[in-house]
Amino acid sequence: MRIIVDGMGGDNAPGEIVKGCLQAAALAPHEIVIVGDETAVRKELDKHSGGGSISVIHASQTIENDEAPVKAVRTKKDSSIVKGLNMVKEKEADLFISAGNSGAIMAGSMFILGRIPGIDRPAIAATFPILSRGAALLADSGANTDCKPRNLLEFATMGSIYAEKVLELPSPRVGLINVGVEASKGPALQKAAYELLELSPSLNFIGNVEAREVPQGCCDVAVCDGFTGNVFLKTMEGMGSAVMRTVKHSLTSDAFSKMGAFLLMGKLRKMKALFDYAEYGGAPILGVRGAVVKMHGSSDARAVKCAILKGIPYAENKVVQMIEDSVLEMEALERSE
Amino acid sequence: MRIIVDGMGGDNAPGEIVKGCLQAAALAPHEIVIVGDETAVRKELDKHSGGGSISVIHASQTIENDEAPVKAVRTKKDSSIVKGLNMVKEKEADLFISAGNSGAIMAGSMFILGRIPGIDRPAIAATFPILSRGAALLADSGANTDCKPRNLLEFATMGSIYAEKVLELPSPRVGLINVGVEASKGPALQKAAYELLELSPSLNFIGNVEAREVPQGCCDVAVCDGFTGNVFLKTMEGMGSAVMRTVKHSLTSDAFSKMGAFLLMGKLRKMKALFDYAEYGGAPILGVRGAVVKMHGSSDARAVKCAILKGIPYAENKVVQMIEDSVLEMEALERSE
Repeated sequence: MRIIVDGMGGDNAPGEIVKGCLQAAALAPHEIVIVGDETAVRKELDKHSGGGSISVIHASQTIENDEAPVKAVRTKKDSSIVKGLNMVKEKEADLFISAGNSGAIMAGSMFILGRIPGIDRPAIAATFPILSRGAALLADSGANTDCKPRNLLEFATMGSIYAEKVLELPSPRVGLINVGVEASKGPALQKAAYELLELSPSLNFIGNVEAREVPQGCCDVAVCDGFTGNVFLKTMEGMGSAVMRTVKHSLTSDAFSKMGAFLLMGKLRKMKALFDYAEYGGAPILGVRGAVVKMHGSSDARAVKCAILKGIPYAENKVVQMIEDSVLEMEALERSE
Repeated sequence: MRIIVDGMGGDNAPGEIVKGCLQAAALAPHEIVIVGDETAVRKELDKHSGGGSISVIHASQTIENDEAPVKAVRTKKDSSIVKGLNMVKEKEADLFISAGNSGAIMAGSMFILGRIPGIDRPAIAATFPILSRGAALLADSGANTDCKPRNLLEFATMGSIYAEKVLELPSPRVGLINVGVEASKGPALQKAAYELLELSPSLNFIGNVEAREVPQGCCDVAVCDGFTGNVFLKTMEGMGSAVMRTVKHSLTSDAFSKMGAFLLMGKLRKMKALFDYAEYGGAPILGVRGAVVKMHGSSDARAVKCAILKGIPYAENKVVQMIEDSVLEMEALERSE
């Protein structure tokens, strides 16, 4: 398998990207290629022993975070994002990973790889931590702010396949994020989506779920429009970091507490890791004809390593092909009704 | 001032309601009246010394949590919710507080008190904790799942007045919850609402705010549709309780940690209080012609006490009258454009 990593994307590129690639290369027997400014990337590679195990493909352009995505993808043909996606399209690579401009990764995936036929709206499916055990998937987490009911069915179907094949959650429980558990609850969008989800024979739909229960693991795939997904994910992040900051502040505010905190150091460190989104391996773009993973802009080496390792089963298990097949089934069913 | 408390609403009625009323009565020089089943309420009052300071008005009916709100309000004329709201309407009371059926409190407020002229959609404005300092307001927190842009302007205007007069936040900073800070971001609803909020001369509008920053206090009044508000608030609750459970579990999992936790006991208790929503005094129904506060269904005595104490400045500062005036100003401005 050949994995292309964008060497120029994110706040910590190329240094942390290169480090993460080296860490992943030490663990996984796959070819890792960094696409980006060759001089800059090689300079980082040279700082590490084993830097020779990673090859570099030169890209003379970089899409910055503040660029308009569609225009950037259309005009910067030699950017790391466009080049990386083209390699996936041409089957020269199995997976593309980037911490760069989210809009450009999304737009590029749609223009270059194309949507899977029958998928109206590809989704960004974020993995988020369930504190008691592992992780769950949120689809859509922000790509599509205005949605139709059918889009939510697509998110659920694609998310279920990813959760089963990559997160290793068998027969994943699909929940629709809503204001109450009764089928009659919520805005027009959620009411109509509920009916579609309930009728789908391929989904393990457990009904509406309240946002309070989702961080505690009440479902494996939480389905919502991208606006709601963004609010949910960012509230989790904001609340998690606010709480941990309060804990830390509280536990070091006097000598007596500091002594207690000292005894708990290992535990507190473990806890911090639980809330550390870097552990959760980036977000796949589902619904396009290729395996693409978007990482958080602030990804460090560990996040890059995790995204690469999580990306392997995503590409290896033919998730994209399975989504294509499931859409065909969905459409056959709709015709027969 | 005369405060009416619903003795029958919520999971812990009437026991905790009565206790909370007594605690508030000991602190505030106002008349507190409990409306509900007289025998049941008196039985609870008799358990406490000073029970005589609270008067009781009998209501022969109770609206249960699973009843359809509109029908319940229309048919149960002698219920505690309908009686309490009628007393506010007839100026026999200044404030009504209930932990009962949210839909019935909302529907009853609209039918019995009526909407403030010019307000299309009254809102439930929840107060939520900012860990570093005090609290902020979320409007709407769940009453209106499908909204128009003008509704969000109403929520902002009403929320600002409440935040200033009750939460004592001068010139409150109003933020629109959105997926990014740029004016052009988000769904159609948020884009249109942004324009209205920006044009309003009476608001201290600081622009879009991301859900990540809201729990950390980036604004004093967070504006959104009720679906988004519900997701935001419940994610905060769910994440807060998940984190605290993890902290507790982590800190008591072995003898060494237990010793550390023992040293930190006071701090941990203080922290728990920070996340305890009971501290934050219920949610006013804004946009109806009277002061009404909805408490969480699981409110205990302390939550009841807080809701009563927070309700006093709400009724005393003529917030309802100020909202009426501000709507007139808003409409005069619209006509002059």
